[in-house]
Amino acid sequence: MELRGKVLIAQGGGPTAVINQSLVGAVLESRKFPQVTKVYGALHGIDGILKEEFIDLTKETTSNLEKVARTPSSALFSTRSKADKNKCVKMFKIMKAHDIRYFFYIGGNDSSETLDIVAKEAEKENYELRCIHIPKTIDNDLVLNDHTPGFGSAARFVAQAFVGINLDNSALGGVFIGVVMGRNSGFLTASSALAQKYPDDGPHLIYCPENPFSRDQFIKDVEQVYNRLGRCVIAVSEGISDANGLPMIAKFMDQSDIELDDFGHRQLSGTGALGDSLAELIKDRLNIKRVRADTFGYMQRSFIGCVSDVDQSEAREVGEKAAQYAIWNNVDGSITINRVGDYSVEYSLKLLEAIAGKTKVMPEDFFNEEKNHVTTAFKNYCRPLLGANVPAPHRLRAPLVDKI
Amino acid sequence: MELRGKVLIAQGGGPTAVINQSLVGAVLESRKFPQVTKVYGALHGIDGILKEEFIDLTKETTSNLEKVARTPSSALFSTRSKADKNKCVKMFKIMKAHDIRYFFYIGGNDSSETLDIVAKEAEKENYELRCIHIPKTIDNDLVLNDHTPGFGSAARFVAQAFVGINLDNSALGGVFIGVVMGRNSGFLTASSALAQKYPDDGPHLIYCPENPFSRDQFIKDVEQVYNRLGRCVIAVSEGISDANGLPMIAKFMDQSDIELDDFGHRQLSGTGALGDSLAELIKDRLNIKRVRADTFGYMQRSFIGCVSDVDQSEAREVGEKAAQYAIWNNVDGSITINRVGDYSVEYSLKLLEAIAGKTKVMPEDFFNEEKNHVTTAFKNYCRPLLGANVPAPHRLRAPLVDKI
Repeated sequence: MELRGKVLIAQGGGPTAVINQSLVGAVLESRKFPQVTKVYGALHGIDGILKEEFIDLTKETTSNLEKVARTPSSALFSTRSKADKNKCVKMFKIMKAHDIRYFFYIGGNDSSETLDIVAKEAEKENYELRCIHIPKTIDNDLVLNDHTPGFGSAARFVAQAFVGINLDNSALGGVFIGVVMGRNSGFLTASSALAQKYPDDGPHLIYCPENPFSRDQFIKDVEQVYNRLGRCVIAVSEGISDANGLPMIAKFMDQSDIELDDFGHRQLSGTGALGDSLAELIKDRLNIKRVRADTFGYMQRSFIGCVSDVDQSEAREVGEKAAQYAIWNNVDGSITINRVGDYSVEYSLKLLEAIAGKTKVMPEDFFNEEKNHVTTAFKNYCRPLLGANVPAPHRLRAPLVDKI
Repeated sequence: MELRGKVLIAQGGGPTAVINQSLVGAVLESRKFPQVTKVYGALHGIDGILKEEFIDLTKETTSNLEKVARTPSSALFSTRSKADKNKCVKMFKIMKAHDIRYFFYIGGNDSSETLDIVAKEAEKENYELRCIHIPKTIDNDLVLNDHTPGFGSAARFVAQAFVGINLDNSALGGVFIGVVMGRNSGFLTASSALAQKYPDDGPHLIYCPENPFSRDQFIKDVEQVYNRLGRCVIAVSEGISDANGLPMIAKFMDQSDIELDDFGHRQLSGTGALGDSLAELIKDRLNIKRVRADTFGYMQRSFIGCVSDVDQSEAREVGEKAAQYAIWNNVDGSITINRVGDYSVEYSLKLLEAIAGKTKVMPEDFFNEEKNHVTTAFKNYCRPLLGANVPAPHRLRAPLVDKI
């Protein structure tokens, strides 16, 4: 009753610091099973499948695979293309021609959707094909998951960046705005809060896409912090939107300058426009001289050398679990991470369609009442995901000298 | 013949990842000498001296000092104010009132200038005051130094960032522009070249302030790389200027929007304007769809957890050397770092006026003929400064599968 044939693995969407851990987990685990005849990797996600661009990972050394596992970004390269019905049918045919019997796709909720369509096509054609979705996204926005691989390392980067930025801002004063990735979910922006060690540490204000953004309230918030501390550090999600759901970047920018991708999403990253516009707003309305905005950009998802060991091992395990579920249990689905202890996790398999196309956002109790910061509940949720040995800042505590 | 009295230490200018190593080196070394009655720290550089805001570092525990040493950014806080003659005279009077006999200022060439004026004032007044400049700057632009503390760690951050960005760009294609700090000297931008491991790795193009920037040549360069590789990663200094020395950011932006600081310098950091303008230029002229620009911003000088151990120990030593030269040798000057082996350094003392107000730029043999990249000579110069255990990326090497 063993399903004999090839494994095909692909990576889609934005890279993460640990996405190759999942790849290597799936490859090494698959190679243990005698019924797996070959393990293929598709280049550039679904684009590579459509073009039949496969590499034979059966021939890759384990030693090199371990090194690739520790390298950020997608070793099989990625794609932003959306797989519609027609593409999925074509992909299925190509997989069938290559005797692919196990298809593992590492990606966000779009990938789960793709797998679901392919799986249904295979079923219709009476071709046994196991389809498993391996979760990844720095946005942490997959439903039915406590969190997703890739988030912990990105959150660690954001937290460490804000530690430094807070120190820089305390040394030189003024207002600093850091624009963090996150279209609909504020998890990554919120993780900046883990930078706070001393009571007056920034970020002092955090704005996420979950809550309608008001320029007037923003200015009031900044003024209040600035009057109290003489400085202010702010974290905002690139996806913050007004009460009608219109992204602030669209309000600030000429509409025609905004790119749309295959999914109809507006380009939010790779431009400093939102941060610069917010900085201008503060300068104009509050007459504060030193206002700076940095957009964290691609660094936060691909920086080498800032990885959460927890994220690393979980990313590895979801890859291994994909192979185990598909090959031992002969089922389709999406691997999910469930928190069962403080801190420990277990993995389970959910239906592909239960993950596909849905977006998880931050629950209400993770935000303070004013919707301009996070709660301790969020910090407790997020902290273990950052992993061990997160560096912490220290201050001088020497007493002031009497003036003469 | 021993000069008995207090030590005063201050930190000025932009923070670095290791500036507190120098502070702690100077404090601990000073505390060893019995003729040093107290070790004071001035808050916010010269502003704190003028306001008599001192803390008594004699009372700080060694254990906490060691923790502060490993914390980025200026633990004594900093300032962007320029010390003119009047301010220096006032500072000298305050120091005299506090029986300060040793003044150590950690900073760039501006700090050396300040020290020089203060030292001359003390001499005029026949008051024995030893003035030592402790070098720091991520820009690496102090003359008579092989390199300066702070640069190695910032260079490491930039190199690690470009490793990730290159991987990200190879996964998703398009053009990426990273804007790196550096007003007049391109060292930090050039250090992005250390991210190159495989022959086709980015950054493929590097533009520094040392060479006049031409938009037309830039577009030609990008087109050439893009046609060859299907992608392009670019590093540019925020200070790139045209053939007349006018910064590109001034050409792209409305002049009235640009802030000037106390030194008359244009604000270059804390805005995404230059990167965004260059990205627009490429989109318009080359019709490439995916063009992204990130401005590295304050992260590159204050990120916690990305430090060069070489930089760390050298920053510590220049602090220690300041105390030793001043207290044992009873001389004024600026501590400099000289490379004497591959890789080893020695320290020497130079005249304050020899460092003050001068800017070191990259020598010609560090640039390729086209002035759009660096040479192996630069890489050999820069590599040891990044320290040990710089993480390196790894690629899959599995063979392509035949198409069916």
